[in-house]
Amino acid sequence: MDNQHLNEWFSKREKLKSEHTAEKLFPQLIKGSIIALSKAITLIESKKENDKKEADFLLQKSLPYTGKSKRIGISGIPGVGKSSFIENLGLELIKKGHKVAVLAIDPSSEKNLGSILGDKTRMQLLSQNENSFIRPSPSNLSLGGVAKHTRECIYLCELAGFDIIIIETVGVGQSETQVKKMIDYFLLLHLPNSGDELQGIKRGIMEIADGIVVNKADGEMQKKAQLAKKMLENALHLFPKNDINWTVKVFCSSIYDISSYEKIIQNIEYYFLHLEKNNQLNEIRNLQDIYWFREYINEQILSYFTESTNAKEELKILEQKIYLKELPVYVASKEFLNKFKSKF
Amino acid sequence: MDNQHLNEWFSKREKLKSEHTAEKLFPQLIKGSIIALSKAITLIESKKENDKKEADFLLQKSLPYTGKSKRIGISGIPGVGKSSFIENLGLELIKKGHKVAVLAIDPSSEKNLGSILGDKTRMQLLSQNENSFIRPSPSNLSLGGVAKHTRECIYLCELAGFDIIIIETVGVGQSETQVKKMIDYFLLLHLPNSGDELQGIKRGIMEIADGIVVNKADGEMQKKAQLAKKMLENALHLFPKNDINWTVKVFCSSIYDISSYEKIIQNIEYYFLHLEKNNQLNEIRNLQDIYWFREYINEQILSYFTESTNAKEELKILEQKIYLKELPVYVASKEFLNKFKSKF
Repeated sequence: MDNQHLNEWFSKREKLKSEHTAEKLFPQLIKGSIIALSKAITLIESKKENDKKEADFLLQKSLPYTGKSKRIGISGIPGVGKSSFIENLGLELIKKGHKVAVLAIDPSSEKNLGSILGDKTRMQLLSQNENSFIRPSPSNLSLGGVAKHTRECIYLCELAGFDIIIIETVGVGQSETQVKKMIDYFLLLHLPNSGDELQGIKRGIMEIADGIVVNKADGEMQKKAQLAKKMLENALHLFPKNDINWTVKVFCSSIYDISSYEKIIQNIEYYFLHLEKNNQLNEIRNLQDIYWFREYINEQILSYFTESTNAKEELKILEQKIYLKELPVYVASKEFLNKFKSKF
Repeated sequence: MDNQHLNEWFSKREKLKSEHTAEKLFPQLIKGSIIALSKAITLIESKKENDKKEADFLLQKSLPYTGKSKRIGISGIPGVGKSSFIENLGLELIKKGHKVAVLAIDPSSEKNLGSILGDKTRMQLLSQNENSFIRPSPSNLSLGGVAKHTRECIYLCELAGFDIIIIETVGVGQSETQVKKMIDYFLLLHLPNSGDELQGIKRGIMEIADGIVVNKADGEMQKKAQLAKKMLENALHLFPKNDINWTVKVFCSSIYDISSYEKIIQNIEYYFLHLEKNNQLNEIRNLQDIYWFREYINEQILSYFTESTNAKEELKILEQKIYLKELPVYVASKEFLNKFKSKF
């Protein structure tokens, strides 16, 4: 490259960079620009210190405009038909005048990320619709990082005018309880099997569901789906009422029966009416915010300690001593802290 | 009091104090002295700095002698008949040559502590038996404090030769997951009711049970108990296998049918054989130790921050800003830390 080209390249690069900054992105986001939304999310994902500062600034500026969407978590094991379900549900919601954003997260399986989630080709009709936005989560983040990232994406989507935000997870149990703490309504998708096969549901997931769908309830599976629905209803019966006094319902759904989506959308709407009637939506979201605030503090303090090489070394030595029954656990924890308090 | 009396009183007091110290207690504990065990637990409960040091020293000295008991958690809502159940189970175990310690914890209800737990009169036969030891947890501790205290009591009881340690909780859901992390086998007691009434089981508790007992299965309730057993078995069916590949069984039990305890004891014995066959008991306990080690570090760091008046003030201010949407959660957490890092 000669000098002129190099200069052009640099100025182009600087221009691109400045387009990313919060001040420029904000008005575009307010107008609902999908391109700005993509850029803003990239900014949030960035690991550069300067980008992080810009991202924080953008979020702070956005905050008063957020919170106006219905945040819906949708989960289910691979093969349950999440993509087709979300695509059809999304299209039905758009028909009703909504703008639908889909954020897909799968912190547990980096390898399969491309095939399971985020692949636009798997929701072709929805992704081509101008009232939709689909974005996968980056795969190189810890569970805590995914949580932070996804929460912030929700805000940005809300700023850009999306009034339905769907958070998609693979339902392997690890991330769902975290996701539950950043959404309003949690929908669990289930295959039309029952009995022993219900065991596929991971511990705890059914308990956090606000609605359950037996998916692929068509053709030969229709009878089995009805049986699964009954089994799930019985199982739900065994759980105590949730904190918000909401009765969890089970639905059958099929891509060949559009009316099945109608019933689920109705249930979601009832849910929000139920929360708003009792003035609980804001309360729940505030509690969620405080939860994350404390989580982040916690996480940052701990990472300060555990990221240091000295601390890692010391942890290893102390855990060895615990293993060999040389030190009681509590005494070991005090030893660790005394050593590192002075360095913090 | 004249001078002579005062001096006598002081020297007596000093003597009493010195009897409490680790060096004196240790050999008595090894010999199985119940009086020494009571004193040692009092030492652990003490909030005086000097006592704390002695307690740490005692625990460290005891460590190589611990781990030889079967640690059993027993939980159930008030009214399920925990006291009679534990008394009968304990007496049966003693008949088989065991020494049984019962540690009762109830961090959730300070007021009812006396009536629900720890009251020796409620297990009269067991408490009078020389091969038993019954001790309630102090009520003025946080959940974390109870955990620390109870774990250390387990060690002391083991040092004193108790080979069955029963940890009793009231089954309100809060403390059970913590207790699960310090015991080997978790037994859930249930009333002979079913269907809607199964809802009394708190979320998550059934999932951590290694065995379930339908208690008070006698007289008119026998039929209902059988039905409840079936319902519980069906419910268990819906859960996936636990990590250790153990099949959870449901038993009916009644104080009028001593053979019912026999079956439960057998199940506990099978459980330990199952773990030992797969070499899992030590592994599980080591993982538990590491869990508590990290918990304690976590807790101490956080308490350092949140116990400071300045930190409390700052948290309040920041939470207010989050509530008013002035600050994004993550930014607020960073602000908090930057403010306090320099002071730590």
